[in-house]
Amino acid sequence: MTDVAVRQRILTANEAAAAEVRARFRASGTLVANLISSPGSGKTALLEATVARLQPRFQLGAIEGDIATERDAERLRRRGIPAHQILTGGACHLDARQIRQALDEARLPELDILFIENVGNLICPTAYDLGEDFKVVLLSVAEGEDKPFKYPGIFSRAEVVVISKIDLLPHVTFRLDDVRAQLAALNAGCRIVLTAATTGAGMDEWCDLLAARLEAKRRGGFG
Amino acid sequence: MTDVAVRQRILTANEAAAAEVRARFRASGTLVANLISSPGSGKTALLEATVARLQPRFQLGAIEGDIATERDAERLRRRGIPAHQILTGGACHLDARQIRQALDEARLPELDILFIENVGNLICPTAYDLGEDFKVVLLSVAEGEDKPFKYPGIFSRAEVVVISKIDLLPHVTFRLDDVRAQLAALNAGCRIVLTAATTGAGMDEWCDLLAARLEAKRRGGFG
Repeated sequence: MTDVAVRQRILTANEAAAAEVRARFRASGTLVANLISSPGSGKTALLEATVARLQPRFQLGAIEGDIATERDAERLRRRGIPAHQILTGGACHLDARQIRQALDEARLPELDILFIENVGNLICPTAYDLGEDFKVVLLSVAEGEDKPFKYPGIFSRAEVVVISKIDLLPHVTFRLDDVRAQLAALNAGCRIVLTAATTGAGMDEWCDLLAARLEAKRRGGFG
Repeated sequence: MTDVAVRQRILTANEAAAAEVRARFRASGTLVANLISSPGSGKTALLEATVARLQPRFQLGAIEGDIATERDAERLRRRGIPAHQILTGGACHLDARQIRQALDEARLPELDILFIENVGNLICPTAYDLGEDFKVVLLSVAEGEDKPFKYPGIFSRAEVVVISKIDLLPHVTFRLDDVRAQLAALNAGCRIVLTAATTGAGMDEWCDLLAARLEAKRRGGFG
């Protein structure tokens, strides 16, 4: 069996599990966001700030993917939401079979919104459908503005692009216009949200987007 | 053939190519550093600042690995060193066969130091020996201090850990003591260098390290 055939077999198995996960969340009316970024772009910090704003209004939960340590799940549990940690060992991405297994094991309550925080990796998670409603890619302004064209896979597939850590803009070189131009070329329909979890900048826009997307899913507009 | 067997076959083929690359650079007395980090940790900026300091003294060259765009190689060519771009398509790491092929195609001059800038990914490049003398991992202070324990593969194998963008320390939460403690547990012998390519902080220490490592290799102390 060639490497390409092996990869195709893995992705086909993933699609079947993703379809099961998607059907499960269609039935429960749960909105599912798959968060993908480099290590250290601020995925967990965005979720902490999101929980602080939406938790009274919606039942939130998280599945955390990491190679090692349960730190991220612990951070979210401290904010008062159920968070299940998947430790991948060495694996560089989450797959839908892991999500299906996590749902069976974690006994999460009925959720309005489930956040899946993928392994910190801007490349490999892109190919794996986890049964989510949409992908969110984060790009911290400290990473530099050249990333969409350098990592076109995720930046062309994400429905939402979160430009994070904008409180650092005065201290780094990051031409937002250049990023917008790259995204216009790769993914003209994406939604771009500028956030800083530390100051709260952009958090209302992000939370409103989640609430609207949840409502649309339940109306049958999506998913 | 199982997935594990396929992976083993790939790594075995890689080892053979890495041994060829290593023999080639032992013969030429070229020091080879394999730079690994998340996207946007400042690998190219570190190399630009290195070239500005070492180019008169040593013949430097670079092989750049990226999924897409030739931006990084162009940045280094503008600094006056030969730089060969490997475009991996979708692949998330460089392998030794690509390096061997690049050496055949790129017609680099005889080099004192070759920098291999890996694909921006803190996970997948770790398993692939490229025939280098040593691995360097970069961690930008904007990424947060929890990364060594979350990505133990590379942080336990790198001979040098560059903590980059330390000019941002006043603006981010990054407990250096915590990072040092994690590295002491994972990789007690590693060398830690704090740098800021924008201000030049730490660049003398980094360049001295390279010069000493090159001299040691040529004396037969390493490699």
